[in-house]
Amino acid sequence: MKIALFNKHNIGVVTEDRIVEIGELVSWQRENPQQSLQYLMENFAELKPRIEQYVTSAESVPLSEVSLQAPVPNPTKIVAAPVNYYLHQDEMNAQFNNAEFTIEKLGFFLKAPSSIIGPGDTVRLPFADRRTDHEAELAFVVGKRAKDVPAAEAHQYIFGYFGLLDITVRGKEDRPWRKSFDTFTPIGPWIVTADEVGNPNELGFKLWVNDELRQSANTKDLIYDCYKFFEAASAVMTLEPGDILTTGTPEGVGPIQKGDVVRIQLERIGEFSVAVEGKEGGK
Amino acid sequence: MKIALFNKHNIGVVTEDRIVEIGELVSWQRENPQQSLQYLMENFAELKPRIEQYVTSAESVPLSEVSLQAPVPNPTKIVAAPVNYYLHQDEMNAQFNNAEFTIEKLGFFLKAPSSIIGPGDTVRLPFADRRTDHEAELAFVVGKRAKDVPAAEAHQYIFGYFGLLDITVRGKEDRPWRKSFDTFTPIGPWIVTADEVGNPNELGFKLWVNDELRQSANTKDLIYDCYKFFEAASAVMTLEPGDILTTGTPEGVGPIQKGDVVRIQLERIGEFSVAVEGKEGGK
Repeated sequence: MKIALFNKHNIGVVTEDRIVEIGELVSWQRENPQQSLQYLMENFAELKPRIEQYVTSAESVPLSEVSLQAPVPNPTKIVAAPVNYYLHQDEMNAQFNNAEFTIEKLGFFLKAPSSIIGPGDTVRLPFADRRTDHEAELAFVVGKRAKDVPAAEAHQYIFGYFGLLDITVRGKEDRPWRKSFDTFTPIGPWIVTADEVGNPNELGFKLWVNDELRQSANTKDLIYDCYKFFEAASAVMTLEPGDILTTGTPEGVGPIQKGDVVRIQLERIGEFSVAVEGKEGGK
Repeated sequence: MKIALFNKHNIGVVTEDRIVEIGELVSWQRENPQQSLQYLMENFAELKPRIEQYVTSAESVPLSEVSLQAPVPNPTKIVAAPVNYYLHQDEMNAQFNNAEFTIEKLGFFLKAPSSIIGPGDTVRLPFADRRTDHEAELAFVVGKRAKDVPAAEAHQYIFGYFGLLDITVRGKEDRPWRKSFDTFTPIGPWIVTADEVGNPNELGFKLWVNDELRQSANTKDLIYDCYKFFEAASAVMTLEPGDILTTGTPEGVGPIQKGDVVRIQLERIGEFSVAVEGKEGGK
């Protein structure tokens, strides 16, 4: 099931190129979308058949007529894998220092939830003289509270998957600073529930800047796959329902500029674009 | 005014060694303490005289009979200054590497909100073989949404101050990993409102492990003082009401061990202790 937020915090289900509003069915409170999402995830086993039934006969509108929003609006944390594909590990170590960046050595970092934007929103570059990169990633939302969960059980705790752009200023500052500017975490286009995604560790995805293909990869090349990264994060801290984990970017990261359009497309999930504005952006 | 959370998310005001429960007066919802705190901060100008009036005649109980909790239970972020006293900068650079750690170069880092505990709770050491340190800090809570606030105006956005222990595993992992283990952010003993604290940039504080004085400093020696750090953080991202900013630790950081009791005391604020349990803890 594809679960989308749209038009100022309404909740809907996407079928093909249309969307059905399901707020009443899931006791949705538009003024508390994050809490409402948590309620939906918690009660999904019971709600799912009712939603599926409802969607078959309910009124729908074309997706093109609505404005999609970030499907997880306000998590308590965004936990991110630093260098989680070998080829990206190589390009980072080659370009930026001689140290060995590895996920085993770095653990994870955090991004500020205030950096989240949705499909169709605009990334604003804060610097004219600093290189700022696109990083395409597969992300997921935690469905229930988790601590010390082994990789083999992690799938039970993941509610669904979506795309994430981890926009990043290059430089020597701590990652949370370089990655937490407002608008630096576009997510979307919706949450695809885990049952519909199938194996998240074999999922192709691509990123274009304007019409140039910049990143093309498959999560089968992750160093820590989705479940292993879940294990590693939950070994450190309690993951709360609604928290976002993002699995890291593959090779091909590169600078974005004022006026660019960045598009991410993920197999079995979907695609979305964001515009780039603000300062010119360094190279 | 000293505003405390106690006994499973009740709200109270502390006067000398007693506490007055004020929940009804401030429309407090115990099931939503963070949202209730935001309501209290937003409406404080109006609520303050009513609370002060109420406290003069209301029933109070001795502080010794209640269990204090973290006064900011669930912020959307904890923004932390990495090396913000010159003498701590020196000890970090001497002990851990040859790189120059400076706040100008590092920016800030984030701690997971799930690491928060309250006064009287217990820090749990995750490793037997890794050095884990105490770091005493002055922290504050954001009272209203802020973006691009100059230092000269920052005081208008800070609701109140409290003590924070930034418990830290030493090593090469990213700071968010080393500092976000569950129980790694004890805060308390309560929020002291900004009007009562006076100048937060001239405030002495101390930390003891058992009865040994380990840190003794004054915020007048901060490199980025409270207001300048607020400016730097709000230049990057929107600070939300209820977010925590913590100003960094002075010299004297050192390892804690299973069985230790760590006590922090801050001028014009108060003091609290936490026990240390878990693995033995490396040295």
